[in-house]
Amino acid sequence: MMKFYDCQPAPSPRRVRIFLHEKGVEIPTVQVDLGSKEQLGDDFRAVNPDCTVPVLELEDGSRLTEILAICHYIEALHPEPRLLGRDAKEQALILMWNAKIEQLGLAALAEMFRNNTRGMRSRALTGPIDFEQIPALVERGRVRAEAFLARLNEHLSSSEFIVGDRFTLADISALVMIDFAKWSNVLIQEHWVHLQRWYDEVSNRSSASA
Amino acid sequence: MMKFYDCQPAPSPRRVRIFLHEKGVEIPTVQVDLGSKEQLGDDFRAVNPDCTVPVLELEDGSRLTEILAICHYIEALHPEPRLLGRDAKEQALILMWNAKIEQLGLAALAEMFRNNTRGMRSRALTGPIDFEQIPALVERGRVRAEAFLARLNEHLSSSEFIVGDRFTLADISALVMIDFAKWSNVLIQEHWVHLQRWYDEVSNRSSASA
Repeated sequence: MMKFYDCQPAPSPRRVRIFLHEKGVEIPTVQVDLGSKEQLGDDFRAVNPDCTVPVLELEDGSRLTEILAICHYIEALHPEPRLLGRDAKEQALILMWNAKIEQLGLAALAEMFRNNTRGMRSRALTGPIDFEQIPALVERGRVRAEAFLARLNEHLSSSEFIVGDRFTLADISALVMIDFAKWSNVLIQEHWVHLQRWYDEVSNRSSASA
Repeated sequence: MMKFYDCQPAPSPRRVRIFLHEKGVEIPTVQVDLGSKEQLGDDFRAVNPDCTVPVLELEDGSRLTEILAICHYIEALHPEPRLLGRDAKEQALILMWNAKIEQLGLAALAEMFRNNTRGMRSRALTGPIDFEQIPALVERGRVRAEAFLARLNEHLSSSEFIVGDRFTLADISALVMIDFAKWSNVLIQEHWVHLQRWYDEVSNRSSASA
């Protein structure tokens, strides 16, 4: 039986939860309490030495510890609805936007949040090693995140969803990014009307509550 | 006709060059001179507003600007040899290791290199916005990169290649990572015998010269 390692408030596993909800798939779930640093304890290190959630444990006991890997595996087991694309070009565009959202959006926001949060002192990065906060990364993260949100707004002026006219993993990643941005008070600006239009649409799907 | 935007000395496009060489595929190539900051000029911004290589321009003029997206598209056109996996689990493990190599290895090394290189002042990150160097990131990058290389050495003690017994994209990414590490004088330590054994093998393939 598969097992899903989750943490309810955290953005990363939420991407997988929304993906599963859109597929209509339920997997027995274990909550990992990041608040009490359970991910750094010996028990969870044996599950994932990189000390991150989400993790998907497969029937044979092997484990997938990265969001894209987990989503790809779920899509192979449950192909419909196609959240990773129907043909090579669509699949490639979804991978492209997903990577941009991770590197230019989510990574910048994580930099802001982790370097600015009192409870995250010495936890400026995920993983088993403690790193001290670097205050200069907070403002840099804001500049990067806001630039990417503005760019996404422009992209959505001519595209209904992130890739074409269908909801995909790229929309899931971007939705979680926008909600995570609120943690650092990075908000959709009033003139970003295309981003707001898209956000209203995707956050009204029932999967958004996952 | 497809077109490939490359920069010969840069690590990121090399991952695609090795991938193409393994497939036996040649694509008309344009060199972008990162040394003279050609990627920041108006002409290249029209190709990729994120100002990075590699870029693959498709027959219909649309463009893929992320390595994984490009490799996925090439694999769909030219399935053999399978560099992205033969079944769902193998594909997922390749995506997982590729993501770890990018986030824990290549990103840490880029942090070291870009924050420590005289010619990169105000270019601490790729992209259209200038960011000043942050000296604290140099040492942090070294600690992260060395920890990841040690982890990879341990992984390779029980695995011939990064994923199982076949050469895949994960090996390409890790090979480029090890060679990029040399730029910052991060070397394979003498006791990392499994990493060295694997590195000797993959760097002896003819594709490594790509």
